[in-house]
Amino acid sequence: MERNNTVSLFETISTLLEKKRYATLRDILTTLNPVDIAAVFEDLQSEKSAILFRLLPKETAADTFVEMDEETQELLIHGFSDSELKEVIDEMYVDDAVDLIEEMPANVVKRILRQADPETRQQINKIMNYPEDSAGSIMTTECVILRPKMTVEEAIKRIRRTGIDKETIYTCYVADNQATLIGIITIKTLLLSEEDEVIENIMETNVISVNTLDDQEEVAQMFNKYNFLALPVVDKENRIVGIVTVDDAMDVMEEEATEDIQKMAAITPTTDKPYDKVGVFETYLSRIPWLLILMVSATFTGMIITGFEDALAGTVVLSAFIPMLMDTGGNSGSQASVTIIRALSLGEIEFKDIFMVIFKECRVSLLCGVTLAAANFAKIMLFDRLVLGNTGITPMVALVVCLTMIVTIFFAKLVGCTLPMVAKKIGFDPAVMASPFITTIVDAISLMVYFAIATALLHI
Amino acid sequence: MERNNTVSLFETISTLLEKKRYATLRDILTTLNPVDIAAVFEDLQSEKSAILFRLLPKETAADTFVEMDEETQELLIHGFSDSELKEVIDEMYVDDAVDLIEEMPANVVKRILRQADPETRQQINKIMNYPEDSAGSIMTTECVILRPKMTVEEAIKRIRRTGIDKETIYTCYVADNQATLIGIITIKTLLLSEEDEVIENIMETNVISVNTLDDQEEVAQMFNKYNFLALPVVDKENRIVGIVTVDDAMDVMEEEATEDIQKMAAITPTTDKPYDKVGVFETYLSRIPWLLILMVSATFTGMIITGFEDALAGTVVLSAFIPMLMDTGGNSGSQASVTIIRALSLGEIEFKDIFMVIFKECRVSLLCGVTLAAANFAKIMLFDRLVLGNTGITPMVALVVCLTMIVTIFFAKLVGCTLPMVAKKIGFDPAVMASPFITTIVDAISLMVYFAIATALLHI
Repeated sequence: MERNNTVSLFETISTLLEKKRYATLRDILTTLNPVDIAAVFEDLQSEKSAILFRLLPKETAADTFVEMDEETQELLIHGFSDSELKEVIDEMYVDDAVDLIEEMPANVVKRILRQADPETRQQINKIMNYPEDSAGSIMTTECVILRPKMTVEEAIKRIRRTGIDKETIYTCYVADNQATLIGIITIKTLLLSEEDEVIENIMETNVISVNTLDDQEEVAQMFNKYNFLALPVVDKENRIVGIVTVDDAMDVMEEEATEDIQKMAAITPTTDKPYDKVGVFETYLSRIPWLLILMVSATFTGMIITGFEDALAGTVVLSAFIPMLMDTGGNSGSQASVTIIRALSLGEIEFKDIFMVIFKECRVSLLCGVTLAAANFAKIMLFDRLVLGNTGITPMVALVVCLTMIVTIFFAKLVGCTLPMVAKKIGFDPAVMASPFITTIVDAISLMVYFAIATALLHI
Repeated sequence: MERNNTVSLFETISTLLEKKRYATLRDILTTLNPVDIAAVFEDLQSEKSAILFRLLPKETAADTFVEMDEETQELLIHGFSDSELKEVIDEMYVDDAVDLIEEMPANVVKRILRQADPETRQQINKIMNYPEDSAGSIMTTECVILRPKMTVEEAIKRIRRTGIDKETIYTCYVADNQATLIGIITIKTLLLSEEDEVIENIMETNVISVNTLDDQEEVAQMFNKYNFLALPVVDKENRIVGIVTVDDAMDVMEEEATEDIQKMAAITPTTDKPYDKVGVFETYLSRIPWLLILMVSATFTGMIITGFEDALAGTVVLSAFIPMLMDTGGNSGSQASVTIIRALSLGEIEFKDIFMVIFKECRVSLLCGVTLAAANFAKIMLFDRLVLGNTGITPMVALVVCLTMIVTIFFAKLVGCTLPMVAKKIGFDPAVMASPFITTIVDAISLMVYFAIATALLHI
């Protein structure tokens, strides 16, 4: 159990820096994980950062740098000499260098690209040309490529010689002279095979790969489905151009889950920065569009109420149940929509399942509707009428409310399950169809049903 | 690109089974990934399943079995002879065997345990004794343990000899005679070091580990933070008892995200089965509790409206704005709560940040409130009053609505950000505090504010 408490670690390091105890600091730094060191950097003043960074062991420096937030990275780069910058860039994996470049302002980017060696620069440019959120944009080009005619001994030798610069050596890729991907072989298989065995006889030929242009969410889902540690990325001619590793897939999974959650709560995802790093204005911008849209669309509910102004003036007791009916409808609808959206994004259901889904939601909605209506009838008659003594609430009013509830829940679940599936089918993002949007539709439906039933049964 | 279309694959295999083309089937099966084969099994009739399973290459059979859903597994087990069952169990990793046992009915569990060899049975029992959702319950005991005084050559020899049964060989653990975890070393380091190098000189001694009783969500977050492929699990005496691998961590991440999303939508998470496998009644049970609770709590909003019955009877125009005010308040509140809940569960913020959070949400709420109030004032005066010609809507009424909106949004964001943090602090699940719960509170607040401002400004 050596999980470090970053706060006290920060104080120790800060004090030692103050006292210029550089030898002690060097010793401490060798015992720490780069992720934890990076957290310390984020709280240090910039001149201290530069000193501390120079105390890092060379092999840890790049790993630590990669884990810092962009402000800290930018500050450090400004303090770097050209040769220091070159050292860090050369030690970084290409996909991390691409992430860095995407975050930095133009002048810093120019400096970075000038210091990278030509081959690295070429690889960076290649990855940066793939569309955002594609497999190509999250891959790294540094993987171990073996030839089919190699023996296990030759393969292990090649890995020993070139492995140091590769992001993973645990899955190796077998390609022919045209770089066409023909097999994969894990280091486990290599180590457990005889040394004179030929690669093509022991490699796995049923290769599952993704295309450079495939969506990163799909790629992450494949990791989850097949439990891979790395997935090869190929171009249209099935030539291997890179790999995506499981750590990047986990980041994508987390990012996509956060985005879905935000969209379900009527927030426009604008950034993948953590909460405490997002400014007030940026937060405002991500929240105001849907609030405006939903406020304006609530005009319809207002118009429906206005249309029944006379009925309401005569039977004011009806108004008292409007919030409860609307909330219950909204909650029922979002239960269905959120369930369906999550199932869609985990690939559990597809559009072709729409009738199965509708049939199921209808049955669930009837069960829920009847239960709630019964509970509500009892509550109205016992609590509202007897305990609170509101004699305006006749059994007929209670019946109107309860019938409305059953019908509303039915429509809420129906709309809630159908809309996300249709949205996905026609190419919209199903998550945007979640709670708030459906609440607005269900509000309008519930009011119309309410007033229709009230008019019919109460003769108003 | 060899992603298989499971539907057409199912038809091919089904037809070949019908025609008893077993040799062809055997050939096809060797080219497929166990995950895809498992999907075919789930759609087959049980007698066909048994035949197909016997055609699987021995090494693929267990991997395929692990990927099937529990119904299919149970059906197959019923068809297995004891020796077939033993073969599958022996080939499975211990953590997968535990997952299987947890899903099966008691009589099947007994059969499984009887067939497992004594050592496996002991390991299964050990893992099953850890509390649900703990690191111990998701770990596997099959990992490579090395000794500090071994040379690299000896270590690689041991891995070659024992690696076949280990879930991962990529990270090896160094322990002393008391099994105390003293270091870790990756196979990459081993392969890239000289053969006569001693393990203790090249191993990583800054070991990050988890305790058997740590929560699985915390464990998954550590994978995400440190980009590990495996994480050692130790007991209170720091003795290594197992490892958690990244594929299990990904499953936990996905499961926890789904649970959070369900809770935010007022669904009680009852199962981690995919949507299409959950029965209607089970779905009903997971949805009805919160619907009931929220319906009953909406009684308060009804009581508030009843309290202002006279005001409403006199100025029915006020009723028309109730849904819009309530919805906008609810949406604002859930934007804040959902953002905070996600930030809490990703570890971006903690309880000590509560004042930072409140200060930020207050500023965001004022920006949102003023924007929406201005837009709403314009909409009411131009559309509702001029276009629809509703002369009951005076500028004073518009002012009441817009002031209410600002105050409501302020309280909505305040409640929305505070409640989840306080819930977490006192040991409740913050996700349960999300949208629906907050909507109910905000509804009550917005109505009270509305009627208070209306009473003051409209003198009713």
